[in-house]
Amino acid sequence: MFVLVNLKAYPCDPVAVAEAAASVDSGPAEVAIAPQAAHLSAVADTGVQTWAQHVSPVEHGSHTGSTLAEAAADAGATGTLLNHSENRLKFADIDGSLAAADRVDFGTCVCANNPDQIRAAAALGPDAVAVEPPELIGTGTPVSKADPDIVRDAVEAAESVDPSVDVYCGAGISTGEDVVAARELGADGVLLASGVAKADDPAAALQDLVAPL
Amino acid sequence: MFVLVNLKAYPCDPVAVAEAAASVDSGPAEVAIAPQAAHLSAVADTGVQTWAQHVSPVEHGSHTGSTLAEAAADAGATGTLLNHSENRLKFADIDGSLAAADRVDFGTCVCANNPDQIRAAAALGPDAVAVEPPELIGTGTPVSKADPDIVRDAVEAAESVDPSVDVYCGAGISTGEDVVAARELGADGVLLASGVAKADDPAAALQDLVAPL
Amino acid sequence: MFVLVNLKAYPCDPVAVAEAAASVDSGPAEVAIAPQAAHLSAVADTGVQTWAQHVSPVEHGSHTGSTLAEAAADAGATGTLLNHSENRLKFADIDGSLAAADRVDFGTCVCANNPDQIRAAAALGPDAVAVEPPELIGTGTPVSKADPDIVRDAVEAAESVDPSVDVYCGAGISTGEDVVAARELGADGVLLASGVAKADDPAAALQDLVAPL
Amino acid sequence: MFVLVNLKAYPCDPVAVAEAAASVDSGPAEVAIAPQAAHLSAVADTGVQTWAQHVSPVEHGSHTGSTLAEAAADAGATGTLLNHSENRLKFADIDGSLAAADRVDFGTCVCANNPDQIRAAAALGPDAVAVEPPELIGTGTPVSKADPDIVRDAVEAAESVDPSVDVYCGAGISTGEDVVAARELGADGVLLASGVAKADDPAAALQDLVAPL
Repeated sequence: MFVLVNLKAYPCDPVAVAEAAASVDSGPAEVAIAPQAAHLSAVADTGVQTWAQHVSPVEHGSHTGSTLAEAAADAGATGTLLNHSENRLKFADIDGSLAAADRVDFGTCVCANNPDQIRAAAALGPDAVAVEPPELIGTGTPVSKADPDIVRDAVEAAESVDPSVDVYCGAGISTGEDVVAARELGADGVLLASGVAKADDPAAALQDLVAPL
Repeated sequence: MFVLVNLKAYPCDPVAVAEAAASVDSGPAEVAIAPQAAHLSAVADTGVQTWAQHVSPVEHGSHTGSTLAEAAADAGATGTLLNHSENRLKFADIDGSLAAADRVDFGTCVCANNPDQIRAAAALGPDAVAVEPPELIGTGTPVSKADPDIVRDAVEAAESVDPSVDVYCGAGISTGEDVVAARELGADGVLLASGVAKADDPAAALQDLVAPL
Repeated sequence: MFVLVNLKAYPCDPVAVAEAAASVDSGPAEVAIAPQAAHLSAVADTGVQTWAQHVSPVEHGSHTGSTLAEAAADAGATGTLLNHSENRLKFADIDGSLAAADRVDFGTCVCANNPDQIRAAAALGPDAVAVEPPELIGTGTPVSKADPDIVRDAVEAAESVDPSVDVYCGAGISTGEDVVAARELGADGVLLASGVAKADDPAAALQDLVAPL
Repeated sequence: MFVLVNLKAYPCDPVAVAEAAASVDSGPAEVAIAPQAAHLSAVADTGVQTWAQHVSPVEHGSHTGSTLAEAAADAGATGTLLNHSENRLKFADIDGSLAAADRVDFGTCVCANNPDQIRAAAALGPDAVAVEPPELIGTGTPVSKADPDIVRDAVEAAESVDPSVDVYCGAGISTGEDVVAARELGADGVLLASGVAKADDPAAALQDLVAPL
């Protein structure tokens, strides 16, 4: 089970969260932290698996203000989110960003809202797709409880296009029980954010999340 | 065979092109004209099938500057291009624009660049996808000659996801021979632009295009 | 006093609103209607002054899905809003859209949020700038009541850069009293939307608005 | 004289360029390096003045994929470019990004194309504006030679709105002579890119640039 903690632009200490993640006995789970690009190297230096929140659909060249995949890789990242609901990309740019991520062997997860989008995202060949129903983001209600069919439908949608594409569950996950429920519905991972990033004790929060696995 | 003439922002007389299209004996072909939104009603008044170049992923509401599907339908349009290479949309917005087009029963064609994108676009449920290799746009070299596999691969890609999705061939088509070649490679239609829009005699240009069908 | 009724993507009958506007005795006020691009010609045919909600920063050419200023002019428009809060433009594109509007002698109004933006917008050389504090849009609270200094500051800001640039007041205007208050604070016009577009009797709503002038 | 070396997404070693910059005797010039966000901390660790290529118009919060000013500051940056021609921003977002930069006391430079845009950019209150005529970018022809009036007009335009705003000259600068010419035309700094970033010996290239000052 892949557990990705997205630090967004939260006012947290990214190194403290990363050290917490590095210290947790994650058992069969694999924990990664996705900080701001400017924090990638500090997070990666803790030894935790580090993801970018985004990479740009560009190659080396005149692209001021882009997030070059090679720069993220230099800083220690090994994967990237793409098309997060807070960072919607153009269709052709998802394709381009996946190509950029492939150049540096990044793991990739493309976010989507509904089964049609999941199928479309899976067709672009990422390692994983994440289903994040917009109405649940930030609510604390896990998608597995709000409507388990959302996860089941996402798993089925991805499977119908490419069975090798993993499915992550991306909204409202905050407890170990939620993670187990997501797994039982067929998810291969979860996306988390404030539940860990804003926790008083991120290590305890993460330990609780992975303990039941 | 569907023949869509995209007038883009060309300095042509959209009504003259529309009248030319309405006057052509298109035989088994179906000809449509896609003018600027502000020209939709004038073009539709000629009786020719009229498409929008784009509709916005919005419903009725506070969306200043959008292209509301209902407004395009009021003006007489019955279909829309989406995600043209000159008007790349966000992934989620293609989904939203398709939903908008469905509200008014528009025919829909989503443009894409390569087989992965064709499969992804087909997964979003449009009536058709168009393959437009960026390197051929505006060259006058038809994709069927430059690399027939581009069309064959697109047809196969769409078929693999949803056999009910048509495939249009969208770059470099300028003669009836090109249209026939596209059809023989499995395309259900073609997208044209300058070949008709900028012709001295648009009716003759269109007649030549559909004559061999 | 310029009174611009922005129909946005509202579910109103644009021709009915336009006919209402054309029928009103506007006295010293000048009333214009800004419908969807696809409705421009139907609105202009009523004889009312007609504005576009947006024009694209492009010239004639390969710009599928754009709103070409020349096409809006063909349809009868004589002015355009730019950078409305629902349609925020890139800085360089405001400059480009103003150039496009100038090609067809459109009146232009660039929307902005605060005095710095008003000064910046005025520096780009439009005919008018509109101050629309985002917090008041759609509230029914006129900016002249919520905080008269917002209008005064906008007038002063535009004046400091270019005294020939008019200032319109663009949020929360719904009564004739609001229009008079805006005028007394130095505004040369007002932007309206739902108060007229969604009124049961748009002619009566408009008549009430202009009566006290 | 401020000399900003923009590393864009070039395939250079950002630390090597930064060390070169740190080693140069810059005399009265002030040299700064603007790397990819993911390279900010490595560049700042060399002791050279470090700028971001962009910061997002956001505060702490749910902004996946943004470039938070606070994160850039954490990494050691002390300034930022905004609205570079390769990263055109929305008008309102330039204002928002300037506010973000102010929160962390960054120096700021807003890029623009022509005198109207320079005046508008200056009105938004940055520390500096940069004039980069698009037609000269990457040509190796310094703006001071191609058309000295472009620099003079930019200086005058900024001055007319706010004399405290510096003007940088941003296209085609590659020699010390170009830097001197820019200074003589009234510029307070220059933006450089490939001339240093792609030099075989960045230290020598920089030394040549600042020697005549």
